[in-house]
Amino acid sequence: MLPMSDLGRALCIITGASRGFGRTIAKEFSRVVRPGSAFVLVARSGGDLRSLQAELTETEAGRAGLQIRCVEADLGLAEGLERVTKAAQEVATDLTEHVLLVNNAGSLGDISRFTKSFTDMTEVNSYLSVNVSSFLCLTAQILQAFPQRPGLRRTVINISSLCAVKPFSSWVLYCSGKAARDMVFRVLAAEEPDLRVLNYAPGPLDTDMQLEARSKSGDVQLRKSFSEMFSQGQLLSCEESCVKLMKLLMEDSFTSGAHVDFYDI
Amino acid sequence: MLPMSDLGRALCIITGASRGFGRTIAKEFSRVVRPGSAFVLVARSGGDLRSLQAELTETEAGRAGLQIRCVEADLGLAEGLERVTKAAQEVATDLTEHVLLVNNAGSLGDISRFTKSFTDMTEVNSYLSVNVSSFLCLTAQILQAFPQRPGLRRTVINISSLCAVKPFSSWVLYCSGKAARDMVFRVLAAEEPDLRVLNYAPGPLDTDMQLEARSKSGDVQLRKSFSEMFSQGQLLSCEESCVKLMKLLMEDSFTSGAHVDFYDI
Repeated sequence: MLPMSDLGRALCIITGASRGFGRTIAKEFSRVVRPGSAFVLVARSGGDLRSLQAELTETEAGRAGLQIRCVEADLGLAEGLERVTKAAQEVATDLTEHVLLVNNAGSLGDISRFTKSFTDMTEVNSYLSVNVSSFLCLTAQILQAFPQRPGLRRTVINISSLCAVKPFSSWVLYCSGKAARDMVFRVLAAEEPDLRVLNYAPGPLDTDMQLEARSKSGDVQLRKSFSEMFSQGQLLSCEESCVKLMKLLMEDSFTSGAHVDFYDI
Repeated sequence: MLPMSDLGRALCIITGASRGFGRTIAKEFSRVVRPGSAFVLVARSGGDLRSLQAELTETEAGRAGLQIRCVEADLGLAEGLERVTKAAQEVATDLTEHVLLVNNAGSLGDISRFTKSFTDMTEVNSYLSVNVSSFLCLTAQILQAFPQRPGLRRTVINISSLCAVKPFSSWVLYCSGKAARDMVFRVLAAEEPDLRVLNYAPGPLDTDMQLEARSKSGDVQLRKSFSEMFSQGQLLSCEESCVKLMKLLMEDSFTSGAHVDFYDI
């Protein structure tokens, strides 16, 4: 397809939208959607979501009538996923020409400990449920709710990480969860040729998650290296990473299912 | 270290030991352990385990006093894992010089359906619990039960698959589970330099799992390609794949944490 100058009349579903990269995606995407678009913003924290909604309402897109639906939901629960899907169906219209799902929600897990300490199935099950199962099942639900039809473009995005392809000491849950997510999307891309499927690794972002990484990582070297990146100003802003993500989406020349890193672009 | 001509006075813990590759591993390993070794054989099916035990008791190793403990356990349950660890501790002695854990148990998941059909968190959670969480937690429990000490060699093996590195249409659970397992072991290898960590992809084995693959895969091409491999005699016997695994272990020159495929050796 031809490169686009915007994301079209879009329905954007963004998880983990209340903070960090998800919040930036919501704000930046609002600049590149056409009138008649709708956003479904998902997070556990309702207060932060509503402040984002208020912010978006004041933007040009907001004044032009961008529909914004906040869903306060725990993605570790089936009921949470279903409310997201239902909200997306409610705000979609016959004129929607692009459905985008941004699977951004995620957690580091306990990075203060090493692999040999993960003896408790309940802890691991819970991590995988929130970070892998919910990711797969929400994607599947959205694809079923918005099946392929002429004139509808569908894009699903996994906010991935370098950790999906490279092991980090003391980050076993995060690395294996991200590896699993990338593979879910590689399989999906092989199955659904009409779909655009992207594993985007946003680079080392200056977010609360990075603060957690440099203060809590069990691996001393890793903690040191993150601290140095921070103090030397090498962390990326969410905005600059989001600009590259939007460039990818609008140029639309990435291989469906590929893992694309900020530094590859 | 120097190449070994056997696995030493070993404690071998083998999951999924009742059938297929796990059963072959138990039989082949019994030929290359020294007197004073012990096996912990784990599976859901107690009957098949006991028939394997009877078979092993009749071998040279069995007649020389190989200890064999059968653990009938569901690895999706914390209680099942704990019984495996307890059995391993009971049969280990001060003379044990090599602890080997072979994480072979696993399931394909429902391969008749495509990714977009996986909307049910309960199904995905259950798959990941049996195939990823139990794998991580059992490994952690065994490492804690047998900490590093002078004279003790420790090897942990993940029976991996080409699916850990290559997506297969209609195999989303299997591929993503195997990708997660490989990554768990890559992180573990980075954390524990004294440990030998191996992701071994055994190649397309002529087992019940392959029968399931060629009869049930939702992807028609995949089903056809597996059927052709079967009819043209291209599937591998469990024995020939196990020979390569033992070669790897005895030469002991693989990079810890690496993904090594049958066809790489």
